[in-house]
Amino acid sequence: MRQEQAEPVGNLINGGIIYPAPARKQVIEPRRTLVRMIFAAERFLLLRMLNAIGNPQVQLVLWNGLEISNHQGMVVAQVLIRDRGALFKLLTDPELYFGELYSSQRIEVQGNLLGFLEAVYRVWPLSRQRKIGKKLLAPFYDARRNTLTGARRNIHHHYDIGNDFYKLWLDERMLYTCAYFPSPTTSLEDAQLAKLDHICRKLRLHPGEKVVEAGCGWGALALHMARHYGVTVTAYNISKEQVAFARQRAYAEGLDGQVEFIEDDYRNMSGEFDAFVSVGMLEHVGTDHYRELGEVIDRSLKDSGRGLIHTIGLNYPRPMDSWTERHIFPGACPPSLAQMMQIFEPFDFSVVDVENLRLHYAKTLEHWLQRYEDNADLVTEMFDPKFVRAWRLYLAGSLTAFKMGGMQLFQVAFTRAGNNQIPLTRQYLYESQSNFSGASDGKL
Amino acid sequence: MRQEQAEPVGNLINGGIIYPAPARKQVIEPRRTLVRMIFAAERFLLLRMLNAIGNPQVQLVLWNGLEISNHQGMVVAQVLIRDRGALFKLLTDPELYFGELYSSQRIEVQGNLLGFLEAVYRVWPLSRQRKIGKKLLAPFYDARRNTLTGARRNIHHHYDIGNDFYKLWLDERMLYTCAYFPSPTTSLEDAQLAKLDHICRKLRLHPGEKVVEAGCGWGALALHMARHYGVTVTAYNISKEQVAFARQRAYAEGLDGQVEFIEDDYRNMSGEFDAFVSVGMLEHVGTDHYRELGEVIDRSLKDSGRGLIHTIGLNYPRPMDSWTERHIFPGACPPSLAQMMQIFEPFDFSVVDVENLRLHYAKTLEHWLQRYEDNADLVTEMFDPKFVRAWRLYLAGSLTAFKMGGMQLFQVAFTRAGNNQIPLTRQYLYESQSNFSGASDGKL
Repeated sequence: MRQEQAEPVGNLINGGIIYPAPARKQVIEPRRTLVRMIFAAERFLLLRMLNAIGNPQVQLVLWNGLEISNHQGMVVAQVLIRDRGALFKLLTDPELYFGELYSSQRIEVQGNLLGFLEAVYRVWPLSRQRKIGKKLLAPFYDARRNTLTGARRNIHHHYDIGNDFYKLWLDERMLYTCAYFPSPTTSLEDAQLAKLDHICRKLRLHPGEKVVEAGCGWGALALHMARHYGVTVTAYNISKEQVAFARQRAYAEGLDGQVEFIEDDYRNMSGEFDAFVSVGMLEHVGTDHYRELGEVIDRSLKDSGRGLIHTIGLNYPRPMDSWTERHIFPGACPPSLAQMMQIFEPFDFSVVDVENLRLHYAKTLEHWLQRYEDNADLVTEMFDPKFVRAWRLYLAGSLTAFKMGGMQLFQVAFTRAGNNQIPLTRQYLYESQSNFSGASDGKL
Repeated sequence: MRQEQAEPVGNLINGGIIYPAPARKQVIEPRRTLVRMIFAAERFLLLRMLNAIGNPQVQLVLWNGLEISNHQGMVVAQVLIRDRGALFKLLTDPELYFGELYSSQRIEVQGNLLGFLEAVYRVWPLSRQRKIGKKLLAPFYDARRNTLTGARRNIHHHYDIGNDFYKLWLDERMLYTCAYFPSPTTSLEDAQLAKLDHICRKLRLHPGEKVVEAGCGWGALALHMARHYGVTVTAYNISKEQVAFARQRAYAEGLDGQVEFIEDDYRNMSGEFDAFVSVGMLEHVGTDHYRELGEVIDRSLKDSGRGLIHTIGLNYPRPMDSWTERHIFPGACPPSLAQMMQIFEPFDFSVVDVENLRLHYAKTLEHWLQRYEDNADLVTEMFDPKFVRAWRLYLAGSLTAFKMGGMQLFQVAFTRAGNNQIPLTRQYLYESQSNFSGASDGKL
């Protein structure tokens, strides 16, 4: 192979920083030639990788100072690749290994992390649709299926890493799901309260009714429903730490007679209820269990029953990105709306309202990321720098996905077919919106 | 077969009016025996049919005065079967032939028609889910597929039967789709206006924008968008009579420079638009053409594009009842929400809002049926008594289906993925709701 081939390679992939071609007649030592050939090959492969993910406006910088990009001078961030091993991993599967290498500091992003992620997301979805990453996931999916024991293991991985950690960056009520911002300037605390109320209104709760909640987090919604709507709540969760926290809270707030927290799987629910609600659990159910979930709802609801499922969703079915699925949310799989309908259609449930709150999740994540950064030192003390970086990337990546339209947030309200106790219009949802927001009385 | 068997048969199917068993020792003439055997067999079969459709609270009365029911004394209506031929047809396929026999007066409903239909719908859906009627439809479906020519034939059958006929019972704007009732006492005229406005608000139309409408009826929405939102509209429809009417109207209202009505299939749309809207067409598209519709929308919308589809829908996929599909709406097939998603998901459209207006359609149909009955004499003059009865049954049956939850009305709003020009909340839809309602200024 002759040195001149470096230039055509650069041209072939549409621009990029061309490695300076040496004068033709220069005498080349064999060892230098080999090094240059390796560099040329690496550059070629990196440019091809950038091309495959849609040519984001970024520049790659290697450990030796070599700069590689398809956008000359127009990049929003530089990505430092610190060693050749990192480079090879990145070439193998950028979706999976970027996160791993970023977490362990073998890759650094210089410039604004969010700007970098936006640049990637802007071009990535189309290429992903075409081919990347999907088949690589199959073996992990099997290993992480949400069977009764699999679900426990998966949920433990994410939710049982310490309530004190989550307290650092969630709101005071410990709500780890999309908030609802009546206005862009609403605080996170008020927006989480508004979310609880938005859901309760959609459920049209009446005093004395019985509500069952599947996947109750640290218990904030269950306690809110009991306190402000006078209902009794049976709430299921398989996260040990969350249930312990929620029970303490119910006791402290004098609501333990009205709210029961059960450490068990949603599939083991029993009893008959006026309303079913699930906020942020469906992401962990797995689409192959949707019919089962529908059966659970069907056997749990009275004839006048209604319900609401609040979940991260997608515009079309695809697996979660492999890094998040492996390191952050094992077993997670947000559904498309068509997939969600597998819960309702076999049981003749009537979908009455679907609201997409995607921009609210972007805003929620802005708040979380800000609070997280403010407490990064404390997180480092609790865990280690690798953990800090992994969660930074996860929060920033999620923010970007919701902002750019790659992920959705669906609230789906439904009733039994033929239940005419439904409001004629949705206007009532928007009357005196601020019933509870801003009215923090210390009892959440 | 001996006479005594009549009683066990009656008991077997759980009650019913038992044909008086003759004294055991009575001497029976051979001919009378045969007649009784036939009656017993007919009663047995009719009771079995009633059982198969879920035992509605009705009584069947035969031409000879024989009364048959599974609800002694508790029936809401009597169904007179006027001849043995009608009885046999009804036994063969009640879903298809009830309508045909009712139309031709070989079956009469004594008592309240709506009450009778409600009694049937109350028990019918479950039995239908299990088995009835589906496979019988297959051959008709093939004959009525919504190919380019098939769709023209199907649409002509329903919509070209005379504008004067529809004028008798629709509102002044000639809207033949579900209205929107801000309150239960809103008039039909105001509710249709409120519907137009509800759709325009969901589409967030701005002056100067270009809108494409698929299936524009008599043009009311297109003209409303142009007049009140300052947009230009290209509206497609394959009903000759509707397009002629709409063009006259645009000319009379001085909007012909702003609204173009094109007599062509939605699949032949061309151009690029800010918004796509379709109200009451999807029912006629056929689920096997949804991807094609999605492609049409995808190629017609700008990057900031959004759209709305308003359609009759179902809680789960099933074919339309065979009588309506054969005699009223050939080729029609309302979708479930999962089926509708076949339009959006392959093209990465983002569903932002789904509203189920089922009760609004029940109310709309109450108004239509009332006006229709008020003008039944005029309809008889235009057509014949059979037509009058067929359309009475269709309107009353539809009203009952929406009221009882057998049919849904979905408004699905969507945008291109990543289009962030979407409102944070839906509150704006409910502010100063009455902008246009009640403000009829003669120009619709």
